[in-house]
Order: sequence, then structure tokens, then C-alpha cells
Amino acid sequence: MTLWGGRFTSRLHPAAWQLNTSLAIDSRLADQDVRGSIAWAGALRSASVITDEEYNQIQAGLIQIRAELLAGEFKFSENDEDIHSAVERRLGELIGEAAGKLHSGRSRNDQVATDFRLWIMEALDNLWKQLREFQSILVERAENDFGVILPGYTHTQRAQPILLSHWWLAHFWAFQRDADRLQEVRQHSSSMPLGSGALAGTPFNIDRPALACELGFDKVSPNSVDAVSDRDFAAEFLFWAALVGVHLSRLADAVILFSSAEFGFFILADAFSTGSSLMPQKKNPDLFELARGQSGKLIGALTSLLAILKGLPSAYDKDLQEDKGLVFGAHDTITQLLPALGGAIQTLRLNPERMQAALEDSLFATDLADYLVEHGAPFRQAHALTGQAVRAAEELGVPLSKLPLERYQEISPLFNEDLYAVFDGMRSVARRKAIGGTAPEAVQQQIIQAKKLLEEPKKKV
Amino acid sequence: MTLWGGRFTSRLHPAAWQLNTSLAIDSRLADQDVRGSIAWAGALRSASVITDEEYNQIQAGLIQIRAELLAGEFKFSENDEDIHSAVERRLGELIGEAAGKLHSGRSRNDQVATDFRLWIMEALDNLWKQLREFQSILVERAENDFGVILPGYTHTQRAQPILLSHWWLAHFWAFQRDADRLQEVRQHSSSMPLGSGALAGTPFNIDRPALACELGFDKVSPNSVDAVSDRDFAAEFLFWAALVGVHLSRLADAVILFSSAEFGFFILADAFSTGSSLMPQKKNPDLFELARGQSGKLIGALTSLLAILKGLPSAYDKDLQEDKGLVFGAHDTITQLLPALGGAIQTLRLNPERMQAALEDSLFATDLADYLVEHGAPFRQAHALTGQAVRAAEELGVPLSKLPLERYQEISPLFNEDLYAVFDGMRSVARRKAIGGTAPEAVQQQIIQAKKLLEEPKKKV
Amino acid sequence: MTLWGGRFTSRLHPAAWQLNTSLAIDSRLADQDVRGSIAWAGALRSASVITDEEYNQIQAGLIQIRAELLAGEFKFSENDEDIHSAVERRLGELIGEAAGKLHSGRSRNDQVATDFRLWIMEALDNLWKQLREFQSILVERAENDFGVILPGYTHTQRAQPILLSHWWLAHFWAFQRDADRLQEVRQHSSSMPLGSGALAGTPFNIDRPALACELGFDKVSPNSVDAVSDRDFAAEFLFWAALVGVHLSRLADAVILFSSAEFGFFILADAFSTGSSLMPQKKNPDLFELARGQSGKLIGALTSLLAILKGLPSAYDKDLQEDKGLVFGAHDTITQLLPALGGAIQTLRLNPERMQAALEDSLFATDLADYLVEHGAPFRQAHALTGQAVRAAEELGVPLSKLPLERYQEISPLFNEDLYAVFDGMRSVARRKAIGGTAPEAVQQQIIQAKKLLEEPKKKV
Amino acid sequence: MTLWGGRFTSRLHPAAWQLNTSLAIDSRLADQDVRGSIAWAGALRSASVITDEEYNQIQAGLIQIRAELLAGEFKFSENDEDIHSAVERRLGELIGEAAGKLHSGRSRNDQVATDFRLWIMEALDNLWKQLREFQSILVERAENDFGVILPGYTHTQRAQPILLSHWWLAHFWAFQRDADRLQEVRQHSSSMPLGSGALAGTPFNIDRPALACELGFDKVSPNSVDAVSDRDFAAEFLFWAALVGVHLSRLADAVILFSSAEFGFFILADAFSTGSSLMPQKKNPDLFELARGQSGKLIGALTSLLAILKGLPSAYDKDLQEDKGLVFGAHDTITQLLPALGGAIQTLRLNPERMQAALEDSLFATDLADYLVEHGAPFRQAHALTGQAVRAAEELGVPLSKLPLERYQEISPLFNEDLYAVFDGMRSVARRKAIGGTAPEAVQQQIIQAKKLLEEPKKKV
Repeated sequence: MTLWGGRFTSRLHPAAWQLNTSLAIDSRLADQDVRGSIAWAGALRSASVITDEEYNQIQAGLIQIRAELLAGEFKFSENDEDIHSAVERRLGELIGEAAGKLHSGRSRNDQVATDFRLWIMEALDNLWKQLREFQSILVERAENDFGVILPGYTHTQRAQPILLSHWWLAHFWAFQRDADRLQEVRQHSSSMPLGSGALAGTPFNIDRPALACELGFDKVSPNSVDAVSDRDFAAEFLFWAALVGVHLSRLADAVILFSSAEFGFFILADAFSTGSSLMPQKKNPDLFELARGQSGKLIGALTSLLAILKGLPSAYDKDLQEDKGLVFGAHDTITQLLPALGGAIQTLRLNPERMQAALEDSLFATDLADYLVEHGAPFRQAHALTGQAVRAAEELGVPLSKLPLERYQEISPLFNEDLYAVFDGMRSVARRKAIGGTAPEAVQQQIIQAKKLLEEPKKKV
Repeated sequence: MTLWGGRFTSRLHPAAWQLNTSLAIDSRLADQDVRGSIAWAGALRSASVITDEEYNQIQAGLIQIRAELLAGEFKFSENDEDIHSAVERRLGELIGEAAGKLHSGRSRNDQVATDFRLWIMEALDNLWKQLREFQSILVERAENDFGVILPGYTHTQRAQPILLSHWWLAHFWAFQRDADRLQEVRQHSSSMPLGSGALAGTPFNIDRPALACELGFDKVSPNSVDAVSDRDFAAEFLFWAALVGVHLSRLADAVILFSSAEFGFFILADAFSTGSSLMPQKKNPDLFELARGQSGKLIGALTSLLAILKGLPSAYDKDLQEDKGLVFGAHDTITQLLPALGGAIQTLRLNPERMQAALEDSLFATDLADYLVEHGAPFRQAHALTGQAVRAAEELGVPLSKLPLERYQEISPLFNEDLYAVFDGMRSVARRKAIGGTAPEAVQQQIIQAKKLLEEPKKKV
Repeated sequence: MTLWGGRFTSRLHPAAWQLNTSLAIDSRLADQDVRGSIAWAGALRSASVITDEEYNQIQAGLIQIRAELLAGEFKFSENDEDIHSAVERRLGELIGEAAGKLHSGRSRNDQVATDFRLWIMEALDNLWKQLREFQSILVERAENDFGVILPGYTHTQRAQPILLSHWWLAHFWAFQRDADRLQEVRQHSSSMPLGSGALAGTPFNIDRPALACELGFDKVSPNSVDAVSDRDFAAEFLFWAALVGVHLSRLADAVILFSSAEFGFFILADAFSTGSSLMPQKKNPDLFELARGQSGKLIGALTSLLAILKGLPSAYDKDLQEDKGLVFGAHDTITQLLPALGGAIQTLRLNPERMQAALEDSLFATDLADYLVEHGAPFRQAHALTGQAVRAAEELGVPLSKLPLERYQEISPLFNEDLYAVFDGMRSVARRKAIGGTAPEAVQQQIIQAKKLLEEPKKKV
Repeated sequence: MTLWGGRFTSRLHPAAWQLNTSLAIDSRLADQDVRGSIAWAGALRSASVITDEEYNQIQAGLIQIRAELLAGEFKFSENDEDIHSAVERRLGELIGEAAGKLHSGRSRNDQVATDFRLWIMEALDNLWKQLREFQSILVERAENDFGVILPGYTHTQRAQPILLSHWWLAHFWAFQRDADRLQEVRQHSSSMPLGSGALAGTPFNIDRPALACELGFDKVSPNSVDAVSDRDFAAEFLFWAALVGVHLSRLADAVILFSSAEFGFFILADAFSTGSSLMPQKKNPDLFELARGQSGKLIGALTSLLAILKGLPSAYDKDLQEDKGLVFGAHDTITQLLPALGGAIQTLRLNPERMQAALEDSLFATDLADYLVEHGAPFRQAHALTGQAVRAAEELGVPLSKLPLERYQEISPLFNEDLYAVFDGMRSVARRKAIGGTAPEAVQQQIIQAKKLLEEPKKKV
């Protein structure tokens, strides 16, 4: 059924119908559509556009439709253009003429924007839970793995020793920013377009704030022309998802590296790894590679919507129909990734020996320079002198801790016997105790702070 | 079924399985997979890896599988990880132990790359036909609408009169470039990876050129490491699709404008327009808006794949699994758009009166400047003098053709009575007869050239 | 000068130097770099890493450097690798050995992240002012143009009459969302990385909260590994800019359309239009076209950064050096667009006659359907009946208001003489008085609300 | 100077001027602009629009301008709107009135499209040389490093032994596809728009094929409306650059990994590495990280242009002005990356001991399975049995080559004493001698083929 046949003399050509129909995608809005319609019927009754009796009929019909949908028994017709048409068609079958009154003062333009916002608000509530669960796993690892030291890397080169807990928490904080942004996106989404009509507003005496309250929106949209074509919230959702993807991708890339034979720090559980059809020995970090790959898709989804929105010429244009598939796809991606990666992280085993073995002497070069600073050298000079020591050790083919004291003293008389104490992982990390540093006490503070944040309820929900 | 369980002690966790399985997408490669496997079995026989009898069994089994697939009777198991596993699993059910020999010297890495290239090659052959059909409609319009003049626009401002046929052909040539590129993408795709194994090549004595010939490839991939991870052809396909989308979007945007009440040049057929659920008078160019919107999606699909490919660390990484969904989606988009828009363009009616009415005098200002050039003024001066005439006419509130001769002569003594002849659409277009110009004879040449191109067979097919 | 030569045996190859140097771009951070260094010197003094005297020398030197920079007298050396190196090099020239103490416990990794955040915070403060100014122009137009009615469009087709003020405000609200987001981006940016060292934290007893306070940050980063590689704030900035671009592009597209000969609603001022080198009559909306084009660039800038961030493998990677050029470019684009487009909008003249003339009868079809609803017809039936009236009028070649009453009554007996009153623009808009509607009283409320928002101070600044 | 002031009553507002002027970017087209103008003057003379004497004056003036440009002595005026205006302004200064005749029958629309295509054609000729040089370095490495074996990786896990030469060549072939595409882009670019006027063609009797020949174009554009707005060639250039970027990024990522302490296969030369301002021991692969990062920028540049082109409404729109900055930027990126990375690759040293040490037994698992296949097991069963051997060896904590024969025979009676011969790198690679495989003889064939390709001249140049 289409809702607009009156002035037309012929039906849509099949090729046109196939391109035009959106039911395969927007049927995911069914529940939101029915709830929105029940509330709209209530508002029409309050505005005396329909009678109590008509309202009761409409409500009962919609409740039945919702039950049919939930039970998977709703029958779509091949003539249903979209979910809105399907619901109105079915309502007509159930209650007859009163169904035709439901669309008074409403357009699919404000209706679909309302449904879509409701869907996103609920989706974000679920994503919040998944994200919190994922963050908890990171904190759990930080607690359980406390005391393990591994090299921190910059430029994929060993840089300085850090606590593994510190590293897990680095990822926690990235997702904490995602949690903060999630709440902002949700808040921005919570503005009700319903009552904007096609673009000019509704001519009936609709109490929009009451309607918003009924549907769980925080506020009503302030301008009808804007309301029917604003998709900022969808772009924000996709940007949010793209950044979650970036964070998952970076974590995944690191886990892949740490699980390689060459690093050997992590051992993935069999239940979260896959093999090769050809090479019997392979155990592959497929889930993490998929996360890395799918984060590329999330970037493209955002690009798609922005390219669509750019240059739309008027209040509502059909181009906007493409918004939902993009959002649904990004949602499903995140929703699959978080539990799969969470499980994989929770179950991975450590190989602390490999991490320990990787703490070679050169990782303490900064500590060695700091040693000189503490003995009076300006840092820039201490840096250069330590660089010379590194080169000297390389030339002798020995680690820094085996470079003889005389050789050190040739480089700088500030070096003394006690310099060799710097080559100690725990000593090195323990020195970095300013807020945010890798010292055990600073990391403990982070864990406390992280756990407190996880206990906080989501705002606005 | 997975093809790699041997060394693993536990099955995949459900969340991991759900993320990992690709069957929902790669089952579209079923036919290519079966054909590739039949050919591979032949190559294994020629290499004496399997016996004639084993080959016959495998071939018969695969032929039956293909029949089941075509008939829609192939039963997927919930344990099938991907299409390759499903086919091999079913083959085992049908022929027993010999099925286990099919994968000798082959990996899913070279197998999927081969299937995917075959799929793209066939898809491009079909797209070629759709594109040619679409281009034919544009040429048909150019022929049928010959003689109609409308304003040409730059900056969405009326610029100079042009033939409508010239305008249709402008779009034809954009799609002609797409047709040229399509052939290049197809040629680039036609390089067979099969026989590359997981990454190092196959240890069996496979005659790869013969195998390529059998499968319809032009050549064999020159390097096994490259072959299993090269997705340039998929990126080229998506870039090709994105440019087709850009061309459709530009055409669509123009049709939308020309179908507006304000322009009124085009009247869309009811069978290719839609209405409004609220506003009974509306007839909307939805199909063209969808084309414009979906072209945004095509840009994002290309972005997605490039972001995925960038920074892949090794020969084959699971990130590549995301390639197929992107290509399939772009393919389906183009495949829906071309016939729907083709039909809409074929059936649109013209309103030549509106086009004629839009040929206001100012469109002939360049002709007026050329008039001065022909009478001896340097063009830059002629341009300035004509600008003054435009301003004078605006000040008097008359069109240029009603500006009195005295006024013209105040501006320049080169103006004479015969200047008024320039305000004639056909005269104006007829002057532009250099190759590629809008003069009727030049446009006729274009039509001849275009029809000749459409008759040319596709290269390499 | 490079800051790291100690362990190296040869200088950078020229091709390597050219790729590696970032001075051409990051010299824009000079002021932030100097201020950050002064504050860091203070923190080192408080931590007793340097003496009061050394602090005084360093501070005096840096103040002089700042003066040289402001005066344009700072001399860069061709050996300066980046702005940090240049400043430290110059400091050494000015104060000698004490300069070498400044970098104690600090790395360029935390330094550049700090500089960049400071720069963005200040840039956002300026952008806030420009955005507010731009929004004020829109509200001013809404006030000045009050009472003018034009067609509202959906699908680029005339839909329903609206107030021009309502249309200007529709754009106001889009930019209001940008203003809200700007504050969130600024807040997210205001987290100080300084004191994170290269990645592991600083070994000196730095009071980071005091340092943050000194530099104007709201808080300190909670994790050093995260702090040096987090670029979420830069991605947020680019997403913010991309959405501003989308909003400018949509407004621009509409202004271009409304300034066309065919619409004729707007007349651009000469001071904000350009002409053609060939066609003397042309007056082109170049600025609006540039806005539309540049919004495409902003989308690409966001894509670039997300593609860069995705899959970075470790705490700090040099890939991040590309972040600044992208942000600076997007900033400059917005900073040029807002005043240019603001001026153009402020100075454009209206052609109310053309707007009035565009209010053809079919725009009142919804009002006609509402008429039937008010006389008892269910809306869906009223919609269909009105559709029939539209078709009947088209067949007779008359506007709806000239369709004879008898013909109306053949369609539905609910039609009566008073139906003809619906064909009145002011009556139509006045009916839509629910919040957010186009009725004059509702629009007045919007203006009041908008002006109130514009008077609000920016949070956190 | 602007070329269009005639009809305007006021000058551009400064904010409008600043946004509108493109000189800072398009001055890179100066040489192409002058050459295009000389050729155009010749065509005007042939068409008798100007006299021989006027032609001589114009030609002499333009030759002088070209000399001024080359010598860096050309003085731009702050009133020059773009390079075309600047050149025409200067020509007027030099030769007076005849300068005003040059723009007859030409528009900046066809002029800039011509200049831009010429620029790209020349840029591609230079890029061709850089690319060939870069490919030569890869082949050189393949020749020099012949015989070195390292693990091939899939999923960043050790997979099978391969020749290092094979690995270098894998990258060679990716760039070979770029070389092929470069030639196609150049060919597509080589279509001359000049003579299309603003959009409708030129009214003078211009011999466009002769003009094209003079300027080095292969053909003339077939349709003037299309010619002035077609930017497919620029999009193709950016797509080409994005794929070069992807290939550089993948190579860079691998080099970064292989240069890490954990892999240790490659040692970068000091002249192509950088250090840390804080950590004295660091030697960082910055150039490769920059390549990886900048490839993200290239993706965004392509996205930008596609988003700009999508939905352009008419023949020429000012949005197109943004095309050049994107292309110039991408060009400069590639032009910096190729020599810097080429030098770094040429000078990197190998650590064959680390590569040899990385060839652990599990890399031969496929060879072990093949052993079973050769002794009669179906591959699928051989794969499973080998998987059991891998697990057995892991359980015993021994490498596969130390798993006792009895244990092997418990798994399958097909195992015999000679199974231990499989654990040999050279034996393993030598087996894969089908075309494209990693066997020495197959790799030699690749080198021969690669060198032959490098000797081939570029088509069409």
C-alpha cells in the first residue's frame, strides 16, 4: 500500500518500486513506529481531532499490531512501501475507517525522524551496557595483571618499561571518552520532531511537550523545517561508532602484535582464535583482525552520511532514506565486536617471561640520562652523553649494563658505580609516580578512579 | 564445519563464531567457488595429485552441488564457517573420502581471491549491458528531442542557449568514460590467484596458465604473496562505482531541478514518481533523490575499503573479509539505479514552452560581445561594453533586446541596427559549430559518434 | 637542530629530512609552545629540578623568544626539525647551558599534544565568536523579513507556505547545534597531557594539577600512555567542522537556488557576487558555491584523520604528525567561510513578489484535506479526495481555486463554498501554531528563544 | 584585476575576495596557462579572429611573461583574482590593446580545465620516473638479497618459509599495477577541453584537433558542456595516488615491524632514521610511519573530491575550484615519499641470523601435511593429523622436529623416519616452483620479468 495514490494515474514501474521501497530496512523501526502512533493518537484525542472511541479503537489496533510484530506473526504485503504504510494498512484491516484518522496532521517526514531517534536512543542504552561491560574487562585485567612489567613502545620500538596494568588502562580511558560521548549523542538525539508535519508544523492543537514526555524525549524540536531534515544525531552516532572502531582497532592491532611469535606476550584462547585451512600449525587472531577491518567500514559509513547530507537542497529530500541502513549497520558492527573482543581479552593468557626478557638494557637509557641530570648535568647534555654510551655499548656488542665503568667515565665523569642500579624494571616504573604515570601507586589510583566511574549510573537514563 | 580444527582444544565461543562467520555474505560466491573447485580438481589430476577416478567423483559431486545451489536446495549447516567450508562439507557427504583431496595445495586465501575475481568479472559483464542500455536511452533522447533549445547553466545561473540534445549527450559522455573504465577494471581483475596457496605458492606441479584459461582468466598472478592479499581490483571496482554514482547524482540533481515548478522543463511520468502521505498535490522525483543519496553511499564504500587496505601488515589478514560486502553492496546499488533512472528518463515529457520562455535576452550577452568583436573591438573591451549594456537595461527595466539603439550607441559606436539579430536562440547555438559545440551540425556528429560507440562490442568479452 | 643526535653516526639524508621536517606546519604552534615551556620550567622549579636562577634565565629567554615570534623577527634555521627544536635551539643561543635543562622529564610527545590542545582551545574560542556572529545575522534576517511568505519545499517541490523567517531560523538551529557541540569539543580538549613524558610519565615530582591550572586546562590526563597518543579531540574538531560545513553547504545550496533566475527570490549584492570572464551578463553566487565545495574538503579531512588513527600500533607513532595540517586547514576554511557568507546573507535583497507569485494553489492542498478532516472525513480519505481534486484541476487546466464547486462536490459532498478560503498564504501559515510551527506567533517565540541563547555566555570560557 | 567587472556596481567585499581568490593555489598552473594561451592565440590567428601582427605581439608578450615566471620575477598584484587574470593583466601591461583580443571565444572554464589537464599530464610523466626508480630499488634488493629465507606471515603469524626476494617482489608487483594505472590516467587526461567556451562551444572557426596536437593532447573533448565540468581525470589521479599510498603504507608497516627489536630482520640506516628528544637509545622508523600516516591523507583527498563532485548541479560550478589544491597536495606527498622511502630501503641492512632463527619448525607443518598427502592421505585428513602432531609437540614442549617418531606414528602410520627431512627452509621454498611461487627458479623468472618491464618505455610519452 502507498499512502499517496490520489493524484496519480498509474502505479509505480517495478524498477522504480524496487528502488523506492525501504521496507527491508525500515521494518526495524516497527516497534518505535507503533509506539509513536499510539502516542500520536493520544495527542489527537487531546486536541479533539479524534473521539475517545476512535482513540480506543486505534490504540487497541496498534497494540495488537505490536503483539503481532513481537510474535513474528505480522504479515507484510508486497505492496507495503515502508513500515509506516504497512502499519497503517494493517490498522485499517483491523479497525476499519478510524484507522484513516491516525495520520491527521502528521507526515511521514516527522514520523520517521521520530521513530529513528527513538530507535537510536534505545540502541545507545544497550550499547552503553556493552561498553561498560567491555571497560570492566579492561579494569579487571589491570587488577589481575598488576605487577607485570613489559616494554612500552613508541614508533613500534621499545621505549621505556611500563606496567601491563597501565597499558590496559590506557585503553580503558579511550573507551571512557566513548562512554562520555555516547551520553552526549543520546542527549542530542532526545529532541522530538513529531508535530512538525511535512515541514510547516501541524495545524492541530497538539501539546508537543506532553507528547515528548510520553515518548521519553527530553525536549521538542524548535523548528519544523529543521526538524524533518536534521540528521545531525545520526551523523553523531556514526562518528561515535567510528571512534569506538578506531579504539578497538588500535587495541586489536596491539593484541595481534603481542600475540605474534616474535613478541609472544599474549596467548589467545582457542575459543577465541581460528586456524588455517591449509597450514595445520596456525592459530590466528581473526577476531582482532576483523575488528581492525570493520573499523574501516565504520569510517566509510560516516563518510557516506556526511556526503549525503552535504548539499541537500531542501527541508526533506528522499536522499535521507539512506540514513537508516548506515546507522543500523554501524550499530550491528559495534554490537558484535564488543562481546567478541571482550571475551577474547578476558581469556587471553600472559607470557610474563617473554615480557621480562624484552626489558633489555636500552629501555633504561632515559633513566640513565635522568641519573646524570640528578648528578647535575643539564638534560640535553645528559641525553647526548647517554646516546654516546648507547653507541659505545653497541660497538662493544654488550648491553648497557655490561659497559665497563671506565668506559662510562670516559663519556662523563658524573657516572659512578651506582649507575648500574638503573637497570631495574620495577625501579624504573616506580619513579614515574606523578598523576597518570606508570608507577604502581599511580596506577592503583587509576584503577580506583576507573572503578568509581564504572559504578556511576548513566546520566539521563 | 571448519576446515582447521586439528590443533585446537575447544570450539569457538558463540560471540566469536558470530563475528567470524562470513557465510551470510560469501554465499554469493557459491557458483564461482564450485566452478573454481572443478577446475582445481582438473589441475590436481593433471599434476597426478589425484587419480582420474577421484577426479570423476569430485567433479560429479561438485556438479550436483551446483545443481542444488541453482535449485535453491542446498542446505547450509549452522556450522558452516563460510561458503568454501560449506561446499567442501557437502562434497564429503556426497562422495566421502575423495572430497578430502580437493584442498591439496590450495588455501582459502587463493581460493577466495579467485572466486571474488570471477564474481567481479561476471558482474562487470552484466553492468556493461546495463550501462550500455542506459547510454542508449540518453542518445535516444538526444535524437528525439533534437531542435529543442534551453538555457545552459553555469553556477546555476542561465549562461548561454544550448540544444537539449547537447545536454543529454554531455551526460552520455560521462557514462562513456565509465564504460571505458569498466573495461579496464575487468582487464585488471582478470589475473588468476589460484595456485598461490596460503602465500608461498603451491608445491604441486600445477599448470597455472592452463587453469587460468579454463576459468576464463587472461593471465596468472606473478607472485603468490602479492596474489593472496592484492585487492586493488576491488578498490578499482568501488572507485568505478563511485564515479558512476557521481555521474548519476549530477544527472539526477539536474533532473530534479528541471522538474521543479520553478524550472518546469521536465514532467516526470507518474510511473516513475511518488507522492506524499500528507500533501495530496505532491509529485516527487524520489528516484532521482535516491540516486543522489546512494551515490554518497558509494563514496563511503570506497573509503571503507581503502581504509581497510591501508596498513594491512602481511600477506593475508582477516581484515580482507570485509571486502566482499562492500563490493556486493555497491554492485546492487548500481544495478538498481540504472534501470530505474533509465526508465524515468525515457518516459519524462518535455515542456518546450517553459524552456523557450527561459531564453531571456541576457543569455545572448556573449553573442552581443562577439558582435562587437566581429566589428573590431578587442574581446576584453567588448565584454566590458556589453556589461554596461546589461546594466543599462537593468536600470531601465527592459530586456536587452528592448534597449534602444541610441543607448547602445552611447555605449559603443560599433553597435548598429543589426545587433538585434543576436537575440535568437537558434542563431546563437548555430554559431558554435566547432567540434564539441552546441550547433546542430556538431551535435549531429556527436550522435553519430555515440551510436557508433554503442555498437562496438565490449573488448575482451 | 635535532634534539636526538647522540647515538647516530650520520645526518639525515636530504630526502629524509624533507619528509621528516614539520616546521612549515607546526610553527603555528609557536606561541603555545613557548607558553607551555614557561609553565613547564615553573613546574621544574617547584619540583626542585632547576634552581630559581635557572628558572629566571629560562623564563626571560622564552619571553624574548615570544616577543621575537610576535614581531616576526624569529629566525628559523634550516636545521630546525620542528617548532620545539627551534625554540630550544634559540633558547640555547640566548641563555646558554640552562636551556639544556628545560626538557628534563618532558618529551616532544607530551609537549606537542599539549601545544596542540592549547591551540585548539583558543581556536574554538575564536570560532565561537564567529559562529555567534553568523547566527546573529540569521536571527536578524528572521526579524527583518518577518511577514514574508514563500513556498516551503520538500523534494525540491513546492510543499506548503511558510514564513521566510521560519526558514532563516531553521538554519539558525542547525548552527545552534554546532555551537553546543563546539563547547563539548572544547571541554574534551581541555585535558593536559604535559607530564606524561614519552609515554611512561615523568620521573620528577611535578604538580600536574597546578600546571594544568596555570595553562588553563580543566583537568590532567589520567594515563600517560593514552595521553601521548590520544587524538580524539582532533577528530572531534574535524567532525565538528565537517558538520558546520554540511550546514553551510545546505544553506548555500538553497541560496544558490533561490538566487537563480527561475526562483528569483533572492538578489545577491554585487559586493558578494562575481562575474564571468566570457559572459558579460553573469552574476554568480561564487561564495556559496565555494562553501558547498569546501564542505566536501572538510569531510575528506575528517576521513583522513580517522584513517590515520585507525590501526596505529603503539603509544606514539609518527603518523600522528599529520594531525595538525588537517586541523589547521579545516580551521582556516571555517574561519574564511563564516564572515564571507555572513556578509553575503546580510546584504542580500528579497524579491517578495516572486515569492508571493510562487504560492500557487496546489500548495494549499494539505489545507484542503484538513478542511475535509474538519468536516468529518478521516484524513486518509480526505487526502485521496484532495488528490482527485488536484487531478481534476490539472485535467481542466485550472488552478485548484478555480475548480468549480460542483466539480468539488462531485468528489465529495463535504466540500462547500467556504472551501475557497483555504487558498490564502497567511491563513495557511497561521494555522500551524503548535511549538515549532510556521505560524507568526510560534516564529516569534523562536526568535525570542534564539536571541536569549545568543546572549548566553559560552560555558567554560 | 578581475575579468568581469562590467555589469557590477561595487567591488568585492574583502571577506568575499579572500574566499574567492585562488591565486595562491592556481599560480602553479602559470606555465601551462601561458603555453595554452600562446597556442590559443595561434588558433585565433588561423581562424582570422586576430591578425598576424596581433598574434606576434601576443606571442612575444606571453614568451616574456613565461621568462618572468621562470626567473621568479613575475610580479603578482594583490588584485589578481587568479593566474588567468594575472597573466592577462600582465599581457596588457606589456602589449596594450591587443592583449584584450586573446580571450576571444574562450572562457576561464575551458582554460582552467586545459591548464589543469596539462599540469597533470606533466606531473604524471615525472611521477612515472620516480615510480620506476622506486620499483628498480625493489628489484635490486630482490637480486642482492637472493637466497635469504625468512618466515612469510599471514594474520601476522608465521606461516611458511619464503625467499626474501619473493617478498620484495610482492611489493614490486603492487607498484607495477600503479605504473599501469598511471598510464591509463594519463591517457584519460589527454583530452583537450579548449574550444568549449563557457559551456556551449566557441563561435569562432577554431581547428581544435590542430590545437590539441600543438599542446600535446591525444584528442579533443567531444562535448563542450561535459568538457568544462568533467573532473574524472582529477578523481582518477587522486584514486591512483590513494592506491600508491596504500601500497607504500603496507610496505612501510612491514618494514616498521621487521625493524622492531622483536623481529629484528632489518636495520635501518642512520641517515634514514630519527631519534627521540627524551629517550637516548631510540632509533625510530619515522619515514615509514610518515608514509603510513600520509597514505591516510591521500584517502581523504579522494573522498573530498568525490564529495565535491557528487551533486554538482550544472556545467561549471565554482565548487570545482577546490579540485586543484587536492591534486597538488597528493602529488607533493607522493613526490616526497618515493625518494625518501626508496633511499631508506636501498640502505637498510639485513640481519639474516634473526630471519633464520625465526624459521621454527611449525612453519613446516604444511610441508608435513603434504608429506602425508604424498604418502596417500587425503589432504583434509593430513591437515588434521598434522594438527594433532602440532598439539602433541606443544604438550611435550618440544619443536615438531624433536617429536619422537613413535609419537608421530601413533598419530598416523604413514609417518616414517624420512619425515624429518621436511624441516628445512630451502627444501620447503624449493618445492613451490609453480609460476608465482617462492622457489628460487620461480623467483628468478619474476626478476627477469620485472627487469624487462622496467626497461619498457612508457606508452604514449
